[in-house]
Amino acid sequence: MKMDLNSDLGESLGAWRMGDDAAMLKIVSSANVACGFHAGDTAGILQTLREAKANGVTVGAHVAYRDLVGFGRRNMDVASEDLVADVIYQIGALQGLARAAGTEVRYVKPHGALYNMIAHDARQARDVINALLAIDASLVLVCLAGSPLIGWARDAGLKTVAEAFADRGYMPDGSLVSRREKGAVLHDADEVAARMLRLVREGMVAAVNGSDVRIEADSICVHGDSPGAVGMARAVRARLQAEGVEIAPFAARSGS
Amino acid sequence: MKMDLNSDLGESLGAWRMGDDAAMLKIVSSANVACGFHAGDTAGILQTLREAKANGVTVGAHVAYRDLVGFGRRNMDVASEDLVADVIYQIGALQGLARAAGTEVRYVKPHGALYNMIAHDARQARDVINALLAIDASLVLVCLAGSPLIGWARDAGLKTVAEAFADRGYMPDGSLVSRREKGAVLHDADEVAARMLRLVREGMVAAVNGSDVRIEADSICVHGDSPGAVGMARAVRARLQAEGVEIAPFAARSGS
Amino acid sequence: MKMDLNSDLGESLGAWRMGDDAAMLKIVSSANVACGFHAGDTAGILQTLREAKANGVTVGAHVAYRDLVGFGRRNMDVASEDLVADVIYQIGALQGLARAAGTEVRYVKPHGALYNMIAHDARQARDVINALLAIDASLVLVCLAGSPLIGWARDAGLKTVAEAFADRGYMPDGSLVSRREKGAVLHDADEVAARMLRLVREGMVAAVNGSDVRIEADSICVHGDSPGAVGMARAVRARLQAEGVEIAPFAARSGS
Amino acid sequence: MKMDLNSDLGESLGAWRMGDDAAMLKIVSSANVACGFHAGDTAGILQTLREAKANGVTVGAHVAYRDLVGFGRRNMDVASEDLVADVIYQIGALQGLARAAGTEVRYVKPHGALYNMIAHDARQARDVINALLAIDASLVLVCLAGSPLIGWARDAGLKTVAEAFADRGYMPDGSLVSRREKGAVLHDADEVAARMLRLVREGMVAAVNGSDVRIEADSICVHGDSPGAVGMARAVRARLQAEGVEIAPFAARSGS
Repeated sequence: MKMDLNSDLGESLGAWRMGDDAAMLKIVSSANVACGFHAGDTAGILQTLREAKANGVTVGAHVAYRDLVGFGRRNMDVASEDLVADVIYQIGALQGLARAAGTEVRYVKPHGALYNMIAHDARQARDVINALLAIDASLVLVCLAGSPLIGWARDAGLKTVAEAFADRGYMPDGSLVSRREKGAVLHDADEVAARMLRLVREGMVAAVNGSDVRIEADSICVHGDSPGAVGMARAVRARLQAEGVEIAPFAARSGS
Repeated sequence: MKMDLNSDLGESLGAWRMGDDAAMLKIVSSANVACGFHAGDTAGILQTLREAKANGVTVGAHVAYRDLVGFGRRNMDVASEDLVADVIYQIGALQGLARAAGTEVRYVKPHGALYNMIAHDARQARDVINALLAIDASLVLVCLAGSPLIGWARDAGLKTVAEAFADRGYMPDGSLVSRREKGAVLHDADEVAARMLRLVREGMVAAVNGSDVRIEADSICVHGDSPGAVGMARAVRARLQAEGVEIAPFAARSGS
Repeated sequence: MKMDLNSDLGESLGAWRMGDDAAMLKIVSSANVACGFHAGDTAGILQTLREAKANGVTVGAHVAYRDLVGFGRRNMDVASEDLVADVIYQIGALQGLARAAGTEVRYVKPHGALYNMIAHDARQARDVINALLAIDASLVLVCLAGSPLIGWARDAGLKTVAEAFADRGYMPDGSLVSRREKGAVLHDADEVAARMLRLVREGMVAAVNGSDVRIEADSICVHGDSPGAVGMARAVRARLQAEGVEIAPFAARSGS
Repeated sequence: MKMDLNSDLGESLGAWRMGDDAAMLKIVSSANVACGFHAGDTAGILQTLREAKANGVTVGAHVAYRDLVGFGRRNMDVASEDLVADVIYQIGALQGLARAAGTEVRYVKPHGALYNMIAHDARQARDVINALLAIDASLVLVCLAGSPLIGWARDAGLKTVAEAFADRGYMPDGSLVSRREKGAVLHDADEVAARMLRLVREGMVAAVNGSDVRIEADSICVHGDSPGAVGMARAVRARLQAEGVEIAPFAARSGS
């Protein structure tokens, strides 16, 4: 059995540090690298890409709304022609830096508000899909597991990867528990590791109400923005490996 | 005989318009397209690239310091690791948009303060050269005619193009008249057209003191940021064509 | 009879020019001056403030979302603590520049997406109101005529001014015709001037369906972003003055 | 005996945290608060101002070049009309937020590259001085001890404060040891505390070559950007207090 682990990296900005990219690149198989719109200065991004290359970690473009102060977490009503071009610009910039680092961009995972928006908003989803088709139709799009985005992207001819979140609670319908509700974020590393093992083996997790819910995921997102988060990511990796699960970059699914 | 005409394009920013790209793309053979650091919103850049493609105009990356408010015209003491990565990022972003527009980036022409800085500053020149080598060593670097940058770039293995300015006065040593001095900028379109014809035929222009000065140029920069500038650019093109000079993209020179 | 004319000024950004502030400051009695978030470089804002002072024009802060590329025209889901502080920051910055110019900020008129948002959105409206109360409770808030914002602001103790738009069509209920519909923008300067004269005299305009609609306005917004717009603004002023209406800064209304 | 301790605060930016403002506001008597150009989001600045007010700490404007990615540490060749207006804008913005926090801006301490530049560059020094005179001539300017800026500012009628750095090595002529040289930064908290005690009592510190050098300082700058830095600042405060030195806001010196 195999599973991909991905994490958001390259999110420092000049004098401001965020996350421990060196540590996370020993844990994950896929790196979602910031592209400068929500985070990431160019030299820091390049350094993260070099370290990803050195660790054999697959690189993806973590594209976002143009909003440094809001860290790309605020909904923005960006017109289609702007959003398409913003996404192409960010992917291209990361492709350039990846080439300089001796690696390449294999996938795209939108960040923050854009990620949540396109999981369900058809217009902005189409804009992001069109951006990928315009710059490189072989790029894989990482989507929220269970979201309509997966079908939209496949219908457009893109390969997709469905993603689960290691430290998030799930509703009985497979959606994430809102961050405003109890149970949204899990803090016990052992519990999280056990949940992810079950996800890999059975395609199931326990929902917030105790019922079982099916989550078809090709990749698990882990965080690295605090020492506790790095520890949890390490625990997930160790538990999966101990149970015979290989941590390896995802194999994207094609539409039919 | 052939000569390249180049101009700075794609320099609008959202609601702020600059230049008449559609008109200039009927005049020039090479378009220096803004990359978002001194000017250019992503949708506007993409539109300019599409029009460049439609007009058969060669595309270059007009890379700059990160300074929208100063339009990239202010000297900035950017550290080498930042400058290298800034230039790669901008080239990559433009390459991505160019791919979406069905064209490609063939050359790099730094903008404003960065252009003037690297014409003579060995450290920042090396940073820009290293950026080109890191992302694509086949990119041509457009340099101020007569500047030491040409030698530095060729020694590093880059192809170069030497550039003259249609509307600028020259000192007897071949340098540009400072913008703080009289004679820095020429305003008579007929005079400018005649000067450029002589430049093409003889490799000579009259310096500000009346003496002749040799300028070895592979490309002539014309401006398009006002109706008068567009008219002058059109006059230069018309005069050259009337005298049998073909307006065509430059043939870059390699080092030996 | 008196009427205030206001216009958006100070919206150039470095090398990018917008509007003809010098011309508009001969026409209007109130200047909504950009504060740097959607437009305006600091030196340009200061220059506009000096010209406003020289022309005896009242100054207001044209506060906006932080979005230069989108010119403040894109809805953004800004959290309350950020929005309150963003508005205070912008007002304070303009107050500082106004002091340097020998004048002062008397009112606040939100710009673009923020203006439209707070006309009807109670949460963001409260944030803007709280910002004014926190920095200077004597600041007047300019509101869309007929919008619930007027009541919210008065209930909070702020003075308000209701604003009509010279070049916009109105629905029978007093709301503006959407920019996506026919009749949203009026282009005939004479017609617009006649409408505004009737607005001043009768408090009425013809709605897009021909019916009469009551608009209680203390100020009329005119635009200056094109030569045609400046001409229309001049026509409105001339017509009102010819009919005995004095163009003078608004007298704000207090809540009871 | 009295001495002022100052520190740079309010330097977080959205999701990026920097420093421990709450801890430092228990240690220092003066807070140099970021104004948004090199660091500081508006809500974070406001929070720091509220905490400064609660702790009875005097507030100054930590004005800077407009350069978030470079954290205001890169020299920029900003034209005088822009620099004057940039400084006024930042002071005004902080004044507005300070008013909302129930406190006020008493002094200005330029940051980073601007601080070092105006210590010796007469043109940019004059621009900063003119900005203070234009917005509020009673603002005190914090200057590098021993720098020509002190005389320039006093000649222009400003009050000044001379500043020493707790953790920096000094040359025999009273200038700072360059950060590229050995001995530039001191790391032993006890040694630093002892040096500062001698500075307060005798106006002397040991230079890097062992000789004594006179430093006339009205304020000591301590840092808070790491747990070690906070510890050192606390050690300086504790040592000074143990020896009978009162930690209190500076008394600015007027020119004659």
